[in-house]
Amino acid sequence: MADKMKKAVVLLSGGLDSATTLAIAKEKGFQCCYGLTFSYGQRHRTEIDHAKKVAKSLGVVEHKIIDIDLKQFGSSALTDDNIEVPKDRKGLSDKEQAIPITYVPARNLIFLSYAAAWAEVLGAFDIFIGVNAMDYSGYPDCRGEFITSFQQTVNLATAASIEGKGKFTIWTPIIEMTKAQIILKGTQLGVDYSLTHSCYDPVNGKACGRCDSCRIRLKGFEEANLEDSAEYI
Amino acid sequence: MADKMKKAVVLLSGGLDSATTLAIAKEKGFQCCYGLTFSYGQRHRTEIDHAKKVAKSLGVVEHKIIDIDLKQFGSSALTDDNIEVPKDRKGLSDKEQAIPITYVPARNLIFLSYAAAWAEVLGAFDIFIGVNAMDYSGYPDCRGEFITSFQQTVNLATAASIEGKGKFTIWTPIIEMTKAQIILKGTQLGVDYSLTHSCYDPVNGKACGRCDSCRIRLKGFEEANLEDSAEYI
Repeated sequence: MADKMKKAVVLLSGGLDSATTLAIAKEKGFQCCYGLTFSYGQRHRTEIDHAKKVAKSLGVVEHKIIDIDLKQFGSSALTDDNIEVPKDRKGLSDKEQAIPITYVPARNLIFLSYAAAWAEVLGAFDIFIGVNAMDYSGYPDCRGEFITSFQQTVNLATAASIEGKGKFTIWTPIIEMTKAQIILKGTQLGVDYSLTHSCYDPVNGKACGRCDSCRIRLKGFEEANLEDSAEYI
Repeated sequence: MADKMKKAVVLLSGGLDSATTLAIAKEKGFQCCYGLTFSYGQRHRTEIDHAKKVAKSLGVVEHKIIDIDLKQFGSSALTDDNIEVPKDRKGLSDKEQAIPITYVPARNLIFLSYAAAWAEVLGAFDIFIGVNAMDYSGYPDCRGEFITSFQQTVNLATAASIEGKGKFTIWTPIIEMTKAQIILKGTQLGVDYSLTHSCYDPVNGKACGRCDSCRIRLKGFEEANLEDSAEYI
């Protein structure tokens, strides 16, 4: 019976972390995954097409693409065309360095809030997000402290949890994995990484190879001893 | 100097609670208030025009109206045309009763997340929301426990707080006031309540007088011994 199957909402960006997270959700027995992607004014909106391909390839019950215009707030290289995406940054894994200009204010807070709204309507209490605290760019909203606190907040914010229908769990299965470990895990689960897109500043859909996201990805494939099938300029 | 004046983001729905909250924010010395309103697919979208009038009348630096389509999730009488808004409900102040069908899943969580995003970009750390735990309709996201938890979450989610630029405060100045007290306070601060709109199910912009929101409003004016200048059908 479809309605007895375990449901989860999975945030899908089109990148390799969220693709792996979806594969892990299915491995954990969530047969009914609902993919949620945002068109938020990101300059790398090509990732949305990749999210569609990933959703189709791994199998979701439904894939919603929600239009939210974070461009009107600006202040990030990812949403403001007047701010350049940094290239060839030094020390990209150094957590002591300042939070980079590619940080989008409150983005994961907004994404998770929408995921909670959809989950509540679906009668689902499990939300998967592919945040990663290892090979990351220093974003505050990718840390476990934030996720733990959000989980508490969402359980106070929603009727479903107050009425005792269930308690929300925010799953972060790759938070403590290196990029190489993520790639190896996803490969084992059959994720086709050629469908994913990581670059912040693509040219005609091809990855730049020099932004933080490309560099972290390339390093990950190198360490995993696997070839990255993404197209680079 | 404008940039030395105290800034705050104030959620404005067009209703009387948020209008009073804006007036209180200004009374507390937040000279630079930024009004934030959502067009979320609500059936009473006439409230957006009222929010504009309130913002103009009380004076905000900027008023943003953000389009977010919560209709696509449905499941609330406020966003789903197929669900009727309850009328003449008994015991509307009884906190023991079930959460009503006018509850919109995770709405205040989403609204506050956007407010945090804008505040961070503005360099503001104060957010005002007119939630009320007294004469309310039983919504989980109007309670102090939720607000306190959200405040903790937003301080973990954002670069501004992590970098030590400041800590976010979510202000709920009317949370413990009855509707009559809110109306008396706002009247004292010069709020023109004829500009506000409360009805969930207006007909040609006129209030129905029978939904929870109208009944709570009418009772408030009665208890305050003031006349409600809103138009009713």
